Amino acid sequence: MRRKEFRDLADPEDAHEAIASLDLRPDDETVPLRESRGRVLAERVDADLDVPGFDRASVDGYAVTARDTFGADEADPVRLELVGEVHAGAEPDVEVGEGECAEISTGAVLPPGADAVVMVERTDREDDEVLVRTSLAPGDRVMFAGADVAAGERALGPGTVLTPREIGLLSALGVDEVPVRGRPTVGIISTGDELVRPGEALDSDAGEIYDVNSYTTATAVEEAGGEARLYPHAGDDYEAMESVLREAAAECDLVLSSGSTSASAVDVIYRVVEEAGELLLHGVAVKPGKPMLVGRLQDSAYVGLPGYPVSALTIFRTFVAPAIREAAGLPEPETATVEGEMAVRERYAEGRLRYMPVGLVSDGDGNTLVYPVDKGSGATTSLVEADGVVAVPPDVEYLEAGERVEVQLFSPEVRPPSVFGAGEDDPALSRVLDRVSRPRYLGVGTRQGRRRLRDGVTDVAVVTGDGTPGDATELGGWTREWGLVVPDGNPTGVENLVDLVDDDLRFVNRTTDAGLRTTLDDAVAALADDRGVDRHELVEAVDGYEFAVRAHESPARKVLSGSADAGLGLRVTADRLGMDFVPCGDEPVRVLASDDRLEKRGVQRLRDAVVDAADVLDDLPGYGPL
Amino acid sequence: MRRKEFRDLADPEDAHEAIASLDLRPDDETVPLRESRGRVLAERVDADLDVPGFDRASVDGYAVTARDTFGADEADPVRLELVGEVHAGAEPDVEVGEGECAEISTGAVLPPGADAVVMVERTDREDDEVLVRTSLAPGDRVMFAGADVAAGERALGPGTVLTPREIGLLSALGVDEVPVRGRPTVGIISTGDELVRPGEALDSDAGEIYDVNSYTTATAVEEAGGEARLYPHAGDDYEAMESVLREAAAECDLVLSSGSTSASAVDVIYRVVEEAGELLLHGVAVKPGKPMLVGRLQDSAYVGLPGYPVSALTIFRTFVAPAIREAAGLPEPETATVEGEMAVRERYAEGRLRYMPVGLVSDGDGNTLVYPVDKGSGATTSLVEADGVVAVPPDVEYLEAGERVEVQLFSPEVRPPSVFGAGEDDPALSRVLDRVSRPRYLGVGTRQGRRRLRDGVTDVAVVTGDGTPGDATELGGWTREWGLVVPDGNPTGVENLVDLVDDDLRFVNRTTDAGLRTTLDDAVAALADDRGVDRHELVEAVDGYEFAVRAHESPARKVLSGSADAGLGLRVTADRLGMDFVPCGDEPVRVLASDDRLEKRGVQRLRDAVVDAADVLDDLPGYGPL
Repeated sequence: MRRKEFRDLADPEDAHEAIASLDLRPDDETVPLRESRGRVLAERVDADLDVPGFDRASVDGYAVTARDTFGADEADPVRLELVGEVHAGAEPDVEVGEGECAEISTGAVLPPGADAVVMVERTDREDDEVLVRTSLAPGDRVMFAGADVAAGERALGPGTVLTPREIGLLSALGVDEVPVRGRPTVGIISTGDELVRPGEALDSDAGEIYDVNSYTTATAVEEAGGEARLYPHAGDDYEAMESVLREAAAECDLVLSSGSTSASAVDVIYRVVEEAGELLLHGVAVKPGKPMLVGRLQDSAYVGLPGYPVSALTIFRTFVAPAIREAAGLPEPETATVEGEMAVRERYAEGRLRYMPVGLVSDGDGNTLVYPVDKGSGATTSLVEADGVVAVPPDVEYLEAGERVEVQLFSPEVRPPSVFGAGEDDPALSRVLDRVSRPRYLGVGTRQGRRRLRDGVTDVAVVTGDGTPGDATELGGWTREWGLVVPDGNPTGVENLVDLVDDDLRFVNRTTDAGLRTTLDDAVAALADDRGVDRHELVEAVDGYEFAVRAHESPARKVLSGSADAGLGLRVTADRLGMDFVPCGDEPVRVLASDDRLEKRGVQRLRDAVVDAADVLDDLPGYGPL
Repeated sequence: MRRKEFRDLADPEDAHEAIASLDLRPDDETVPLRESRGRVLAERVDADLDVPGFDRASVDGYAVTARDTFGADEADPVRLELVGEVHAGAEPDVEVGEGECAEISTGAVLPPGADAVVMVERTDREDDEVLVRTSLAPGDRVMFAGADVAAGERALGPGTVLTPREIGLLSALGVDEVPVRGRPTVGIISTGDELVRPGEALDSDAGEIYDVNSYTTATAVEEAGGEARLYPHAGDDYEAMESVLREAAAECDLVLSSGSTSASAVDVIYRVVEEAGELLLHGVAVKPGKPMLVGRLQDSAYVGLPGYPVSALTIFRTFVAPAIREAAGLPEPETATVEGEMAVRERYAEGRLRYMPVGLVSDGDGNTLVYPVDKGSGATTSLVEADGVVAVPPDVEYLEAGERVEVQLFSPEVRPPSVFGAGEDDPALSRVLDRVSRPRYLGVGTRQGRRRLRDGVTDVAVVTGDGTPGDATELGGWTREWGLVVPDGNPTGVENLVDLVDDDLRFVNRTTDAGLRTTLDDAVAALADDRGVDRHELVEAVDGYEFAVRAHESPARKVLSGSADAGLGLRVTADRLGMDFVPCGDEPVRVLASDDRLEKRGVQRLRDAVVDAADVLDDLPGYGPL
């Protein structure tokens, strides 16, 4: 099989060159001025007319012959006969002779004979005469024809990006059709039998997932100045995929696909590209770039992106976006990188260039800290948790904490979050965060929340239970009622924790990172103490105590789906999902902030929101003040 | 007249407050995910499903029961019976019992009974049996349901700006209709009998000019996150203007007009706002903000901008854009200001806050220099020559050269030009500049070009004649043939400069800033020497020697329009405009660069373009190498 020829991964430079060798540039086109914002001039625009097109009064006043005013001043005004008036937008029907003047408004045509304008403030009107109380030189208060732009002058050069300012100048020149660079059309193909477009029904039992890369890539294409065209989803069927690929290649300057997880889809793309074009490259020595394909497909360019969303976006940003911008005539965005220092040490020893996904956070002094985000296995949440990537060269074994790195941002608009927290997944917190602008919060549970605060990565931890570390401050908090979430009507009749232990119930727990799990563990330990038995004995007695799921609603949803009889959860969840609730107690939820981040505005905003959260707690069943 | 109440100009803070008191915020709306780029989430989005929705294989390999592999290694593999296979996007039709395994592809559903996946690389297939050469723990190479996002988790908060990353996460959650903040609709009204929309015919004799502010403001509104709606031009007619204003107020969240130069238009707007709403403010104590109006018009907000384009854009950017962004839920752009140091001293003593239009230029060390751009009288070219404004407080009398100032950019994308030059207006130079990315060039003539180079503002001067200043270097240049441009067929039969002096011809000259004018002056002086007369005598003999126009084509165009018989100009211009040409000589045009800017990349690019300009010179009649 010819794929084997490419088993040596290409150098990243070769990948850039391969893509640069493809021709993505579309024809120039003409667009109405009104729709030209953000477009790029295809050719120089020279002025075709004078601006203004006539000698123009710059003030309201009187058009005069300057010679007539020589020697005039406040004490000794000159008297001129008023022979008419000229309005803006009207042709003068008066001529100004010796000893005469004409009333004139700002912007009006200087009448024949006149060569200056006196401001109305420096005159007095007496019936048909005007007293001019100042001396004028020829040209005073007159903007001569062509003084702003003269016909034949260079106005704007090719490659100019059109913003309001350039559109203003083109307006002045009367240009209403603008020659601009075409936007490269980029076809986006999604393959894989498991992918379903958002909005369509999902069959999880059949392993279906929503297609993430199509919309992400389409949006990123538009951000880079291309025009994205989504093609109907093709599954893994050879005929269908070939026909979509050929259709896209015929209609687009560039075709992008992102790796289906199935090997057969890759094979189909591979075969079609080989038959209808040329494969230039398969696999690049970057992490994540192994599955990358570069080639030609009919008269179009073709790039195959990796399948995992963060990988696809990284490879797109690194290799494809610059080519799209180049084809569109757009400059590289100036703000696409930021510098920062590593918040933690990161080991790396894979021997190939790595685009390490990272998040940004500001420390208390306004420095930018950079921390690795690697949730692995194609987590889509990494998309919003990572702000960009750091290119780590093949020979680097580790990045030290404090080491300065350059982050290539996923979008020029990316900024560090106002406040960065991690910890307990809690519905009241979700609402409180709504009142803070641009927070970032990872619901990784109390244990991980405490760890990240200690590591100096996050500003804030949200935890259950007691114990505030010495270098953190409690901003506030609340209590929440926890217990067992059971189906509506409580069919098994469970009434308390004792029943859970003693009855034959299928239970769903939370993972050990969850503070709520610790609360349950403690309650079970207390029960064991009461009974004078080892807690392991009780745990063993619960069917499913080790069947642990991640988030606050997850156990309840398992119960709802019928795969368990009771789940660890909150009253608010039972209420929300229309289920019954067996209360076991209240637990405190506390928001802790690192002492050296207390001055951050986002931390202060969060503190205010936590302190003012009474209405949020009133809204949520089972919640109350600390 | 009530306008008098407002004769005291309002404090800028009051203007901000008056606009903040207006309600521009439109209703929230729902848009398809595909069209949501750049929009702002109106409400929190919690996950409504688990991602993935099932326990999912992370690699290609075999689904196994981890317990079966305990103790297996390379030397001592365990042998499992292959009982079936599971593909991505298909429901498993196989169960994995003790001692069994099933082939599984990445992304496929873990079949019942299995709790781990072994990578294909760590196995060997022998017919219907698989040798597993590693020990697995439960969960190995499996992404559990909800591990990425769990149902009930907070996904994105209100106020989030949607970029490819957020659109990716929403895709994963299957959200295809997104609740977003509405974009405020901004109606744009243009008034003034003299204004004509670009694309329509212009009658310069009647004092008509193209409407600059409508498209500029519309584009700036869109840049700020609003939706601009242009209303038909209303002239200065009361009925028409009132009806357009009322229509716009009924349809828009905000109505903007920009000052017609005529006082009557202002009066009409004034009356309509008073009758159908409320005037909150008239005139703000900023330069340029005197003509600003703020009020309510029916249920809409109303702001009247100044008439001069740079003034209108400045007031829009300072007072209106923040309100539009606020109403749209968009954050202030981070890159909207830059710091720099004043390139020259600027005096100011007007006693009110001034938004001084400035341009940016990088010096040789990469520092940003800031220089005032004040062409006055509403020049539209200031739009592209200024990059932003510096707020100069009322009590500041001057800004020192070298003083640090903060520039509020007109657009976040604004950057200093790659190379900044000034000097002779020359057609060959226009073409050479096309080959340099983002140059800025002011065709102010040789004299002004030399002055600006000396002042350290520009990088480059383009001059005619000899003399390179001590601290500048010649990058290259060319010669151009100059002479008299006359109507096609040369009806007056002028053959040389002598005829110009001796015959009764109406002449058009260039202004004294033009190097070409100096060349003519020198030639006339030489002729005077030959004749043994004073040069003034010859100059007096030419009808129109002092009738001077600004740019290289301007005299020829005066001749074309019939207002003169001969004009000072270039062979290339005569050729381009289909006119006859009377040659008088060749003059050198030289490109000089400041020695301390020679390292600037843009200067080097320009030098390359000048050196490689042979094809440009070949293309232009009358041009040749230096």
